[in-house]
Amino acid sequence: MTNNVHNFQVRVYYEDTDVLGIVYYANYLKFFERARTEWLRELGIKQSIYLEQNTGFVVRRLGMENIASAKLDDLLNVTTTISEVKRASLVFNQKITNQTQQLLCTTKVRVAYVNLGLGKPCAMPKDILGALKRVS
Amino acid sequence: MTNNVHNFQVRVYYEDTDVLGIVYYANYLKFFERARTEWLRELGIKQSIYLEQNTGFVVRRLGMENIASAKLDDLLNVTTTISEVKRASLVFNQKITNQTQQLLCTTKVRVAYVNLGLGKPCAMPKDILGALKRVS
Amino acid sequence: MTNNVHNFQVRVYYEDTDVLGIVYYANYLKFFERARTEWLRELGIKQSIYLEQNTGFVVRRLGMENIASAKLDDLLNVTTTISEVKRASLVFNQKITNQTQQLLCTTKVRVAYVNLGLGKPCAMPKDILGALKRVS
Amino acid sequence: MTNNVHNFQVRVYYEDTDVLGIVYYANYLKFFERARTEWLRELGIKQSIYLEQNTGFVVRRLGMENIASAKLDDLLNVTTTISEVKRASLVFNQKITNQTQQLLCTTKVRVAYVNLGLGKPCAMPKDILGALKRVS
Repeated sequence: MTNNVHNFQVRVYYEDTDVLGIVYYANYLKFFERARTEWLRELGIKQSIYLEQNTGFVVRRLGMENIASAKLDDLLNVTTTISEVKRASLVFNQKITNQTQQLLCTTKVRVAYVNLGLGKPCAMPKDILGALKRVS
Repeated sequence: MTNNVHNFQVRVYYEDTDVLGIVYYANYLKFFERARTEWLRELGIKQSIYLEQNTGFVVRRLGMENIASAKLDDLLNVTTTISEVKRASLVFNQKITNQTQQLLCTTKVRVAYVNLGLGKPCAMPKDILGALKRVS
Repeated sequence: MTNNVHNFQVRVYYEDTDVLGIVYYANYLKFFERARTEWLRELGIKQSIYLEQNTGFVVRRLGMENIASAKLDDLLNVTTTISEVKRASLVFNQKITNQTQQLLCTTKVRVAYVNLGLGKPCAMPKDILGALKRVS
Repeated sequence: MTNNVHNFQVRVYYEDTDVLGIVYYANYLKFFERARTEWLRELGIKQSIYLEQNTGFVVRRLGMENIASAKLDDLLNVTTTISEVKRASLVFNQKITNQTQQLLCTTKVRVAYVNLGLGKPCAMPKDILGALKRVS
């Protein structure tokens, strides 16, 4: 039996904050990407292997909503699900809550599998596709 | 007569790239924010002044579409327009092209004016509101 | 009995790499700072508390030597010791190794305790000073 | 006649600051690297060209001293000189001042020319070496 929801913890450090005293908005995209990477790793997909074949995942489209702000020392939880898997792309739905279970941020991200030499989408390897379909 | 379109140039450095050989997706949000900041500065709005009153602009919602990738040494142009100005928020429409006029990335960003102590939206100061209305 | 050596693990993500295929040099400073922060946290020093009193740690001087490069997916270990504790500053010695125990990077960092309003060094609170002396 | 001192301006944006209200220490290394890159560009050395031959500049050792802090909206000036040029490495001396000519930060950086496939130093191409010698 597979688990269709992935949880990943992120600590907020100085590097993540800005002069407003909150996490800089672009840095939530780093947190979301770390969570996706760790889920792929748990599914047996180590991205550095595929990079050697000059292919990899590239973000094509995203929407982000920021409801409340993370602060220094916060321990965040990133929840990830996959809502769609196609031959050359997939869609992640993700949200971030803090240690008091307050919802801070949500995103929906379409990621394409790309031939990096050509800069064009290409079909994912079968083992990646199979692993993603099992958890979507 | 006012100018309703703002252009701002960004050079791509090592810090902006990743192992895929392209600009890391979160970094486009930095480029977009630099362009918005420079436009506000040209309109006479120096954000550090308002910070002293514990108020500032915070991104509430955004959509981003990535059509093609920027690379090291690219000289990008960020074009910005404002499509909506309300008492406590506004909407920026932005796009990035490279030195060959190729479209790389577009975004639509809703920014709220926030009382940072309360973490709540508040009405923009009159001089900011007036300046924004003149170019929207 | 106290432990005078702190170990902290860091995973390398896309955000940390650059077009050379290795971790961008400034990002090692982020890893070192995360490790210092976690050690302070284990010692009971939560920096966000002191920030409310408008004081905090600021880096004054550092030396870094880069022996070899970290890569995507690497699982790094940051080892930290404290070689000197004074009333208003301290010195950290840190090094980073990868999952094959290869030494990648070393640093020596002098951190000052600063009154952020004045931008001037000030004596650390007694509880911080006591905790640091116990592990130096 | 060549110019042995290079000046480069950097604006401080939100992305550069942290919750202390000042520029995060690792980000000075980004500013220094941008200045080095622009100087190399002015000397006719476009790094992306050499990357295609799988060679590039990698920082080997650095010392940084932080005298005072940069803040949001500051317009910084990065001054760069070269104090040593060898076959496979060189040394940059750099400093950052703000718009009131206050000295904020100095660094001395040894950069190696590296075969990225082997991860080992290699002799710089003659045109790079010649250009660097003319301004050192």
